[in-house]
Amino acid sequence: MTILARVARRYLLPLFLLMAIAPSAQGTEVLASWNEGEAKQSIVRFVESVTKEGSADFVPVPERIAVFDNDGTLWGEQPMYFQLLFALDRVKALAPQHPEWNTQEPFASLLKGDVKAALTGGEHAILEIVMAAHSGMTTDEFEQIVRDWFASAKHPKTGKPYTEMIYQPMLELLDYLRANGFKTFIASGGGIEFVRVFSEQVYGIPPEQVIGSSGKMKFELKGDQMVLNKLPEVDFIDDKAGKPVAIQKHIGRRPIAAFGNSDGDLQMLQWTCAGPGRRFCLYVHHTDAEREWAYDRQSSIGRLDKGLDAAADSGWTVVDMKKDWNRVFASEK
Amino acid sequence: MTILARVARRYLLPLFLLMAIAPSAQGTEVLASWNEGEAKQSIVRFVESVTKEGSADFVPVPERIAVFDNDGTLWGEQPMYFQLLFALDRVKALAPQHPEWNTQEPFASLLKGDVKAALTGGEHAILEIVMAAHSGMTTDEFEQIVRDWFASAKHPKTGKPYTEMIYQPMLELLDYLRANGFKTFIASGGGIEFVRVFSEQVYGIPPEQVIGSSGKMKFELKGDQMVLNKLPEVDFIDDKAGKPVAIQKHIGRRPIAAFGNSDGDLQMLQWTCAGPGRRFCLYVHHTDAEREWAYDRQSSIGRLDKGLDAAADSGWTVVDMKKDWNRVFASEK
Repeated sequence: MTILARVARRYLLPLFLLMAIAPSAQGTEVLASWNEGEAKQSIVRFVESVTKEGSADFVPVPERIAVFDNDGTLWGEQPMYFQLLFALDRVKALAPQHPEWNTQEPFASLLKGDVKAALTGGEHAILEIVMAAHSGMTTDEFEQIVRDWFASAKHPKTGKPYTEMIYQPMLELLDYLRANGFKTFIASGGGIEFVRVFSEQVYGIPPEQVIGSSGKMKFELKGDQMVLNKLPEVDFIDDKAGKPVAIQKHIGRRPIAAFGNSDGDLQMLQWTCAGPGRRFCLYVHHTDAEREWAYDRQSSIGRLDKGLDAAADSGWTVVDMKKDWNRVFASEK
Repeated sequence: MTILARVARRYLLPLFLLMAIAPSAQGTEVLASWNEGEAKQSIVRFVESVTKEGSADFVPVPERIAVFDNDGTLWGEQPMYFQLLFALDRVKALAPQHPEWNTQEPFASLLKGDVKAALTGGEHAILEIVMAAHSGMTTDEFEQIVRDWFASAKHPKTGKPYTEMIYQPMLELLDYLRANGFKTFIASGGGIEFVRVFSEQVYGIPPEQVIGSSGKMKFELKGDQMVLNKLPEVDFIDDKAGKPVAIQKHIGRRPIAAFGNSDGDLQMLQWTCAGPGRRFCLYVHHTDAEREWAYDRQSSIGRLDKGLDAAADSGWTVVDMKKDWNRVFASEK
């Protein structure tokens, strides 16, 4: 292929495709699932100011980095983190290979169907369940296990597949930022390998732009093949003060916009908005018990307490889901 | 700006710019610093096969991931790793604040000008020097220190700035891959924060596509600001069996092409080329004592011993720098 042909394919083809859809795209409102109001306006004001060439707030494209928490920010997190529901299912599937679990907590309670009793052991119990579900296989095998789970698992309250419990307004926000030259990253307290299985298809975020908590891995021979084995050992917890550290490790550049929903995201927002120049920090506040869930300062999952105070002190945007979103889940038309 | 105007700016402008240079670009040979021969041909064959739509070897754009070692693969690494030369300079600059170093090895020898004696302590001595140079400051401060060093430091043999000791044929290879839809990453045994300071300007590789060895960091208050402090503790060594692990952590997808020059890159090449479908692995063999350096099986820096055997066994491409490159450094015309 000549260079001109390659240029034509690379630039003309997308151009024609875009021109073909442009009339309808022009008719479609940006951020359509966001009601008019301060939350939506603050997003648009920020994006317009950092993309306007010649403006004092202008930010070059390579520095337009936006980071998003996942649980409770891009998709639901009640009645418990979806990845924990995956781990519970996985422990049940593995039980026949582990007769010792019948008498060993937290597995014994879990296998008797008493999830609440299983989780009374707190973080330690959760860690044991998560480790049992997330190690002892190769990275390729784990990806397939998660993929299979998503294909059949349903949310206990809504009955929807988990990948349909993503927030339509946040999808539109991701699109809007990318259309304006932003590179969008996930910085999740959840497992990096778990989120990567669906992030590209569901959010348009490729695996290399996903940051999360991780277990250790080992490169070793399995049979006659070199594999990456997942070990039952924590490598990094991407939560609270770990988030700025993980963002620096993975991106190496301070984001200019950050989006979260809980106190676990507070340090990520602080780090982002403490940088020089124009910055944007946003909290999603779960206020809609009817269409989703309503929780904040007292919740054990996704607690938003210090974060609400910090947002008020710092002038960050707080999204009131009930008031600011005219549609919640992407699966609802 | 209307959507059409935005489309025009995003696609038409680059197109016109490219068309303006197309006549000369067409006249310019791809991989111009590579002599005709098996090395160059094997690269072109691979790229053409994975980018040809409808071919059995076709790979979709998001999966076109290529990883490059840095020291000895993209730039020089003799008489010692350039980052170690930075660390030596840094220890000298810090010495007035550390009177205890006058009697404490490896610092005492180093400050007397006897680098060889300082390094007789082996890996432990090197680690102490590197830690002294790479911790005790914020990430922002470290970036500035490295930037300042690059602006004035000169290579002890060539007298060139270090950023001019990059290999022109490898720059052309990076460009060629990117022009064919590849995303290019660095996976360096060197420090991730060190390489990121120059990777975007010198290689066109943004910080989020740099993987490397790292020290631990802590998010904390310094004065009235939240900062990321660099701690004197190793977080991860991105070498040998660590490279596939770090690649999985950062990219989450197995590369389809890998480029290295030493036994430290062997596992990265094994992991890459053991994947399904068409793959490409390449070793740069330092064979040119006149224009660069000649070393392989016996060298303490950049030893290429097991790797040479594996390349022969596996049919990987081995670049003979003397024979395959008509130009070595980007700074030579």
